[in-house]
Amino acid sequence: MGNCIVAQSGGPTSVINATVAGIVKGNQLNPVYEHVYGGLNGIEGILAERFVDLTDMSDEENHILQQTPSSALGSCRYKLKRDNVEDFEKLLEIMDKHDIETLFYVGGNDSMDTVAALSEYAAKNNITGKQFIGCPKTVDNDLVHIDHCPGFASAAKFIATTALQTWLDVMVYPASRQEVFILETMGRDAGWLAASACLSEKVDILILPEDSFDKDKFLSRVRECIEAKSKCYVVVSEGARYADGTYISAGESKNDLFGHAVLGGAGNALKAMILDSGAASRCKVQDLASAQRSHASEQSLVDRMESFRLGLSAHMHSADKSFTGKMVALRRREGEQYDVEYFTIDADQVANYVKHFPTEWILPDYKGITQEAVDYLQPLIEGTPTIVYKNGLPAYVEPYYLN
Amino acid sequence: MGNCIVAQSGGPTSVINATVAGIVKGNQLNPVYEHVYGGLNGIEGILAERFVDLTDMSDEENHILQQTPSSALGSCRYKLKRDNVEDFEKLLEIMDKHDIETLFYVGGNDSMDTVAALSEYAAKNNITGKQFIGCPKTVDNDLVHIDHCPGFASAAKFIATTALQTWLDVMVYPASRQEVFILETMGRDAGWLAASACLSEKVDILILPEDSFDKDKFLSRVRECIEAKSKCYVVVSEGARYADGTYISAGESKNDLFGHAVLGGAGNALKAMILDSGAASRCKVQDLASAQRSHASEQSLVDRMESFRLGLSAHMHSADKSFTGKMVALRRREGEQYDVEYFTIDADQVANYVKHFPTEWILPDYKGITQEAVDYLQPLIEGTPTIVYKNGLPAYVEPYYLN
Repeated sequence: MGNCIVAQSGGPTSVINATVAGIVKGNQLNPVYEHVYGGLNGIEGILAERFVDLTDMSDEENHILQQTPSSALGSCRYKLKRDNVEDFEKLLEIMDKHDIETLFYVGGNDSMDTVAALSEYAAKNNITGKQFIGCPKTVDNDLVHIDHCPGFASAAKFIATTALQTWLDVMVYPASRQEVFILETMGRDAGWLAASACLSEKVDILILPEDSFDKDKFLSRVRECIEAKSKCYVVVSEGARYADGTYISAGESKNDLFGHAVLGGAGNALKAMILDSGAASRCKVQDLASAQRSHASEQSLVDRMESFRLGLSAHMHSADKSFTGKMVALRRREGEQYDVEYFTIDADQVANYVKHFPTEWILPDYKGITQEAVDYLQPLIEGTPTIVYKNGLPAYVEPYYLN
Repeated sequence: MGNCIVAQSGGPTSVINATVAGIVKGNQLNPVYEHVYGGLNGIEGILAERFVDLTDMSDEENHILQQTPSSALGSCRYKLKRDNVEDFEKLLEIMDKHDIETLFYVGGNDSMDTVAALSEYAAKNNITGKQFIGCPKTVDNDLVHIDHCPGFASAAKFIATTALQTWLDVMVYPASRQEVFILETMGRDAGWLAASACLSEKVDILILPEDSFDKDKFLSRVRECIEAKSKCYVVVSEGARYADGTYISAGESKNDLFGHAVLGGAGNALKAMILDSGAASRCKVQDLASAQRSHASEQSLVDRMESFRLGLSAHMHSADKSFTGKMVALRRREGEQYDVEYFTIDADQVANYVKHFPTEWILPDYKGITQEAVDYLQPLIEGTPTIVYKNGLPAYVEPYYLN
């Protein structure tokens, strides 16, 4: 019996560890591997042989791991380039040395590309007995072929909850006090997170990357709301942009290592427009920043269970030794009651594509989303797991990468 | 049997409605009044005779009310000035007209001044049969004579939870990636909220208004952390200031109606210092803004129960018709186990004073807080009430002021 290794990559989510917990639990229930190793800090740590042994994790630790946000194994932004043969050889060598048959990689778009690249390399070089399997996660919900991405629903739940709570906060003063509240969410290219704020039913104006921004139209909507009720609740995605593709937060953008634009400040850009134009006399901005992807104390129960089950599913599929270069996924079953089924797909069909928020789900004039969009989003945020507390704060697993 | 009215003023908290729920419940259990009215939008709404009848609130509504953040009765920033005799006369006239014996005012510093001013006016003019009773609330925890303020503990719990979760978020990348994370909290004059982040045990640098800011000392602490572990977790209060009293967020400050400085941007000011000096190559800021005072879905159970009991206590005391110009309060009992007892105090002893975070609880070089401070804060965030959900989001009472 050989071993397997699981590693995590990319940005944190509230349930990214539930998938690791699922793989570990899967192997305890149905042993396929002698050891389940955790690779620390993604591919970067595996290349440095930084491992931890997760095989005999206790049920208590498994439970706490599932409510610990952000990769407990650490993450990296290191991308295996197809022309960097040295890395590929070194990785396979390390796998051989530790008798590792299977690498589970939990991540988003770029991680699925790594899974595809590794399995392609192995096939091309007739390397057998090695599997590379992807497990999806991303708060952005922008992976294709999967109904929704693990991690998204918990972020969506926190965003909608915060929208509801801050709407109550801003409405509290009499009509004599004009106020615009702007909630800024993550979402570089896709508006899923911003759109989910509409589940609160409190959003007056919604600005998504998929809907080109028009300053005059926006300001006239703000004026309309202020005239009607002296308050206006705006939600904007960090990736909101003009028709020509310029981000409304421009000026502040620069590039990260992967060549994505790093954004911030869409909310402040809108605030400046509102105050400069006199559309309202007061405006506050709340940027949900890192909290939205790491607020695991109010996970969506659906999200947590699905993430765990994707881990179980990946482990189960790996018993078939020809299973490689694949990502485990889920699709929604037809019917009134929300339900999903699990399936698998080639990782290269997922890597480097982006699933946008459907434009047919966007109401005109920034008025929010259609009922169809609500029907898609709503079941995902159902349920709240029982959280274990310690000294009044959510218990968490001490990050393995710090040991 | 006469009537009473309860109103709310000032900024929102997560448990401000629990005190209203306590007054309503108190009168159901032990009727002192025929009607318990809610005055909408504080004194401003009472002067406009905008009332709602809360007397027969169902248990279910009472429960949901307690988990609804931000004043369900609406708020105002209107301050009764002692020389504005017209307002006083009008208020008393309205109370007479509706046979209202007692006004309960739930609020902070300014509201206690209103309670004091009204009872002084009544005494000076030999007006009998009218009571004015204050119920404390403020996320800032800056009222004197009370051990801690209702609303503070729930905000503190959310801040410490977010500190823990965003610390996990920022630590996740390998040591090759330098990163400073700055969490900005409310706290104009008092550092209680920022200090409570230290309950997470993850804060490297804490900047409070009570501890004068020194840029060089700050940057050298940042460099120290970056050298040691390539990451640095900073918490700053919006009211952080230099020794000469200038806010570090200066430039952005202006005055609100009450003559307080309106702040924002302490975190961004620190970020600019860090990046300009090269103390670290990356820096993120999360300003908790409105969410920290309105995140009622993770209230502290201690806070919610105490807020409710302060409502019960205010109602009970009001049965003594000589009881006026007072605020209900709580103090901690001696002993190892956390416990409080309720008492009352003259509202004018509370109005217009500020309770600062004790300087003897601040560690040197921005290193956080003493064990004594932790021992004070920790019991306040214990317990999490069971939250009622509707469609995946916390249920709330539709604001009365919108009806």
